[in-house]
Amino acid sequence: MNSTRLDVLAIGDAVVDVIATTDDSFLEAEGLVKGSMQVLDAAAATRLYAAMGPARETSGGSAANTVAGIAAMGGRAGFVGQVADDQLGEVFAHDIRAAGVEFRTPPSDGDVPTGRCLILVTPDAQRTMNTFPGAAHILSEEALDAQQIADAAILYLEAYLWRAERPRAAMRKALRIARQAGRRIAFTLSDIALIELYRDHYLEMIEAGLIDILIGNENEIKALARIRDRDGAIGAFAPKVPLLLATCARKGAIAVAGDRRVEIKAIPVDDVVDTTGAGDLFAAGFLLGIAQGRALDESLRMGAIAAAEIIAHFGARPVADLKALIEEQMTA
Amino acid sequence: MNSTRLDVLAIGDAVVDVIATTDDSFLEAEGLVKGSMQVLDAAAATRLYAAMGPARETSGGSAANTVAGIAAMGGRAGFVGQVADDQLGEVFAHDIRAAGVEFRTPPSDGDVPTGRCLILVTPDAQRTMNTFPGAAHILSEEALDAQQIADAAILYLEAYLWRAERPRAAMRKALRIARQAGRRIAFTLSDIALIELYRDHYLEMIEAGLIDILIGNENEIKALARIRDRDGAIGAFAPKVPLLLATCARKGAIAVAGDRRVEIKAIPVDDVVDTTGAGDLFAAGFLLGIAQGRALDESLRMGAIAAAEIIAHFGARPVADLKALIEEQMTA
Repeated sequence: MNSTRLDVLAIGDAVVDVIATTDDSFLEAEGLVKGSMQVLDAAAATRLYAAMGPARETSGGSAANTVAGIAAMGGRAGFVGQVADDQLGEVFAHDIRAAGVEFRTPPSDGDVPTGRCLILVTPDAQRTMNTFPGAAHILSEEALDAQQIADAAILYLEAYLWRAERPRAAMRKALRIARQAGRRIAFTLSDIALIELYRDHYLEMIEAGLIDILIGNENEIKALARIRDRDGAIGAFAPKVPLLLATCARKGAIAVAGDRRVEIKAIPVDDVVDTTGAGDLFAAGFLLGIAQGRALDESLRMGAIAAAEIIAHFGARPVADLKALIEEQMTA
Repeated sequence: MNSTRLDVLAIGDAVVDVIATTDDSFLEAEGLVKGSMQVLDAAAATRLYAAMGPARETSGGSAANTVAGIAAMGGRAGFVGQVADDQLGEVFAHDIRAAGVEFRTPPSDGDVPTGRCLILVTPDAQRTMNTFPGAAHILSEEALDAQQIADAAILYLEAYLWRAERPRAAMRKALRIARQAGRRIAFTLSDIALIELYRDHYLEMIEAGLIDILIGNENEIKALARIRDRDGAIGAFAPKVPLLLATCARKGAIAVAGDRRVEIKAIPVDDVVDTTGAGDLFAAGFLLGIAQGRALDESLRMGAIAAAEIIAHFGARPVADLKALIEEQMTA
């Protein structure tokens, strides 16, 4: 196997988060389920945006947050995702490059604007996400750079992007390229609602040995395994993949590789402001640890440190010096 | 005089702030003077944006921040400013309306994009501002609504917008309309560099009795008076206007009306994060107090409370419930 130029290359939604604080009554009035993610068309996005309060914009996207986190920890990361040739596309491209992530996907032309995710944060720090994917969902095979994929130790795919046909085809092609280059493939389940829709696809890929690292929160793993008990679901599913990571929010996370099962508690955070990006950043720390050849417990700890940083402020990209934080807390 | 529909109507730059944290060495490498404001052309803005770190976007503009603050305190506020028909224009219009401010200026068509202010915040919480004014500086007389101006107790103008010829003509027209309607006119000096350029204009307007409330920080008042000593400058200039407000950062603020001179200390803030908007929000509290017919000391206190809120977080628009904060702290 050739040496790698990148630790992780992600393919995911390229969206800008539009974050506003709100209260439970607004969610109720808008018919939104707290903590959920829904996809909006342009008209619904425009309507919800008009109804919501003043917002701040930061670059987002689940897998994009993950690679921004990896770069912030000193890892070598790349991202593939589709933005349009507009102001929010410029913001997305600026932010991910300024975070130190290799981003080469050219902006699309045409009328589909860069995607947005309208995020409503309630006083309990929970986030309700309303995504208008825009250009992110017209990512095509032509946007892939085979050499870039072959150069990354881990190819990381997010299920959020699995919903759309063109990006799905692109991800299938990327899977083949990574496999042929002998690289590892990580897949995050992203959202419990998607499991209903794409369970067969996921199981097929797992059966075919295409997924080396399967990532999900406990509810997603339970839905995938169709087992109501967390440990039962993990126990049933772990043998199917070389490495399984189950995140359990405040309860921490569990990693299983063969007959090794390691659990870690979440790092307590005094003032949880916004849980947006917690899972993305846990994945960042964990995947970087794995790419660097660290042990499971160390990789889990890196995930926990990164997740603790992100929930202490608004937005899903790190603001603290994550590299220093990891160095400091890993040696402590 | 007819009754009013608005407490304050502001005319100012309609820009979106692009805020990134940085360090002193970056400012030095870019040849930027910490704490200053400079105007960039499109090419320089593009270059600086590419060099700066990941950013967050929030609506800004000095006078726009002020009216957003007034609305957040429960005041009736309006804003006049030019955005383009693009994504950042949509963001600006959304945010100011969602803040409760009346904003009717239609977006411009044409190639000039919505303005941006690239703000670099150093670890000492100081902000260095680099404005690409874009569409904000093509505001024309046609954008004015004479009835809206006549309906506001106070017309508030910012000197930042005085730089550009078309907006300057629009502001001169607005001054006449407000005067004819018997309304009060407040003018903020905005920036010490502008005083060099427009001192004659300012003095002319003051001589002509067009400015009822003159607002500046101590350095601006000193430059305008051409007196090096703060109290000397205030003493020399106060007799020329019905009401003078001089803000003095950490030292507080001074208001002079005729032979009444009231001083207030700044409210101590434990964790100053970003001083962007401190002056804008002081003006918000002060002007709302004046519009509500409050005494000078009360109006100053409202300014100090609003300024203390804004420097405790990133961005120049309030995030806390400013109305509750004012009610709580004014009765304390």
